Amino acid sequence: MADWLTSLQTETPQQGFELAITLARKGVGYTQPDPEVREKLRPTYAEDADSLTFASHVIATHFQTVAAANNYWK
Amino acid sequence: MADWLTSLQTETPQQGFELAITLARKGVGYTQPDPEVREKLRPTYAEDADSLTFASHVIATHFQTVAAANNYWK
Amino acid sequence: MADWLTSLQTETPQQGFELAITLARKGVGYTQPDPEVREKLRPTYAEDADSLTFASHVIATHFQTVAAANNYWK
Amino acid sequence: MADWLTSLQTETPQQGFELAITLARKGVGYTQPDPEVREKLRPTYAEDADSLTFASHVIATHFQTVAAANNYWK
Amino acid sequence: MADWLTSLQTETPQQGFELAITLARKGVGYTQPDPEVREKLRPTYAEDADSLTFASHVIATHFQTVAAANNYWK
Amino acid sequence: MADWLTSLQTETPQQGFELAITLARKGVGYTQPDPEVREKLRPTYAEDADSLTFASHVIATHFQTVAAANNYWK
Repeated sequence: MADWLTSLQTETPQQGFELAITLARKGVGYTQPDPEVREKLRPTYAEDADSLTFASHVIATHFQTVAAANNYWK
Repeated sequence: MADWLTSLQTETPQQGFELAITLARKGVGYTQPDPEVREKLRPTYAEDADSLTFASHVIATHFQTVAAANNYWK
Repeated sequence: MADWLTSLQTETPQQGFELAITLARKGVGYTQPDPEVREKLRPTYAEDADSLTFASHVIATHFQTVAAANNYWK
Repeated sequence: MADWLTSLQTETPQQGFELAITLARKGVGYTQPDPEVREKLRPTYAEDADSLTFASHVIATHFQTVAAANNYWK
Repeated sequence: MADWLTSLQTETPQQGFELAITLARKGVGYTQPDPEVREKLRPTYAEDADSLTFASHVIATHFQTVAAANNYWK
Repeated sequence: MADWLTSLQTETPQQGFELAITLARKGVGYTQPDPEVREKLRPTYAEDADSLTFASHVIATHFQTVAAANNYWK
């Protein structure tokens, strides 16, 4: 797999949040590497409230890491 | 997407809590960008106790981050 | 909404735990602002073991924050 | 409610783990204050593997807090 | 109950990971103290992917604690 | 079991992320040591959106630990 994560530093909190989203998706991507399967699953979970909440929780967990890595962009 | 997160600093813990809510919702919004779909899902999860608890958990996770970013408003 | 969270500091760990409960409930309250709906949901989740465990998990997450904010009441 | 949590300090890690269990149960107790209802729920969740895992997760979350409060009993 | 946790210090990260597993199991054991019941549940959850993931999550949470207690074995 | 975890230090964040994946899988492996059973479960959870999200959450939790161990590769 090509380099996709060379730093946890971002310029802004928003970029950090978007990095957290990338990390959450990569966690899925390593487990299910077939992009077609992932695409097939999208309509199901993207219209299920709890699935969206669970996805948001993973993002929140990664955002903790990214925010700490950036000393909270203070 | 326009800038929506320029700082994790807030003046009060309550504003920090409300920022945590925003972050939790943004996590959903990036995953399901269609506001109509999200609106359609609201009645279901907003009347399901576990769904509300899960949503509250995501907020709690983000509030940890925001509180640390503000040195707990000490 | 009136001020409900002006500080994370509490005098005792027990008050900190109770603040964590308040935070967990507020996370639900912001998502489902109608107190009648919340009241209607109570009998269901309060008699479901997993629902109670999930609620306890949210409290635990907030208690981490509150405890850190109080330097663990050392 | 009488005082039940006056300190997060414990003499040993094991006592800290047991305090984490107390905290997890208190989180349930505040949400469902009726001990008869809680007793009625016990057989169900205590024989369900996932319910036990979820309960163990709440204990783990509280143990993080208690361990930090005791500087990991170093 | 006999002493089973006298220190969070381990010599290697792997021993720390194994301690995290012990902590996760103890969280279950305190909630369901009957070893026969736990044994009966094992075949069910050990062949359910989500159950295994949930168990792995509890281990991950405890591993955070153990790793911090050991200053990450730096 | 042979040594599989001798350090939490990695050269890059990406290697740290991959270590987090290893840790998440090891948590499963210790609970279900039979590789044939794990292999049998794979098609089910790898095509279930929530299962993938849960797996991603465990990775996120371990990544917090690994990132802290590496001082966020600053």
